[in-house]
Amino acid sequence: METVTFREASEQDLDSIVFMLSDDNLGNTRERYEHPLPESYIKAFRAIDSDPNIELIVACVGNTIVGVEQVTFTPHITYQGGWRATIEGVRTASSERGKGLGSQMIRFAIERAKERGCHMMQLTTDKKRVDALRFYERLGFKASHEGLKLHL
Amino acid sequence: METVTFREASEQDLDSIVFMLSDDNLGNTRERYEHPLPESYIKAFRAIDSDPNIELIVACVGNTIVGVEQVTFTPHITYQGGWRATIEGVRTASSERGKGLGSQMIRFAIERAKERGCHMMQLTTDKKRVDALRFYERLGFKASHEGLKLHL
Repeated sequence: METVTFREASEQDLDSIVFMLSDDNLGNTRERYEHPLPESYIKAFRAIDSDPNIELIVACVGNTIVGVEQVTFTPHITYQGGWRATIEGVRTASSERGKGLGSQMIRFAIERAKERGCHMMQLTTDKKRVDALRFYERLGFKASHEGLKLHL
Repeated sequence: METVTFREASEQDLDSIVFMLSDDNLGNTRERYEHPLPESYIKAFRAIDSDPNIELIVACVGNTIVGVEQVTFTPHITYQGGWRATIEGVRTASSERGKGLGSQMIRFAIERAKERGCHMMQLTTDKKRVDALRFYERLGFKASHEGLKLHL
């Protein structure tokens, strides 16, 4: 496959990111891909961008953004004061699915987590995404936990 | 039951917190409750304390710490730039279990999440903790997701 590069997102990438998030079976009911983008996306981007413990990472082929993932590094008292990395909002462009891009993205996040000294990488995946569970298990994740959500 | 108060933990509380974390079926294999406490706990406490988006909350009866929970507030691009609150490291003193303290702690965290404008509260619970799942479901959480972990 084509060479994929990874970098932190800039505000100019937000349009492509929101498009990918909305171009998804579950995301299409949650997101608002409009022009101009709703202000809430821009505010969230700036909060993420200014937090040294959050990396919003885009995968690129040439100048085209083909994937996005958010990796948050968090200190905890548990595990003897260990840091964890949490991956959320993983999406690939629909044109790129099935080419191994998702695996590359998760492996990149794992390397970042190791560089940051994290002892654990974690994520939750919607039980409706049946293929996603197998995908993460192939990468070594164990579905040892229930992922509980409460909409406020 | 006795009146429970909640406040952010101070470094002086760390001994009680680590004791509670280690006095647990799963925690006893992961933690090191020693004197002096391993430096890694103190470093993690200071990282948490200096992060405005993390609250390490202790529940107290009088001057005695009877519970601990960490609530992390995180901005995301998903859900139109929504913030989420994640609860982790919830423990109650063994002497207090079965008295409704856990519910009070989670309800306190939910109120904090609402005050911070979060649209979702989330947590993962080990599938080995069979009572915990029912506890969280009674509080309104849905086990809609798999919780995946990868030890690095």
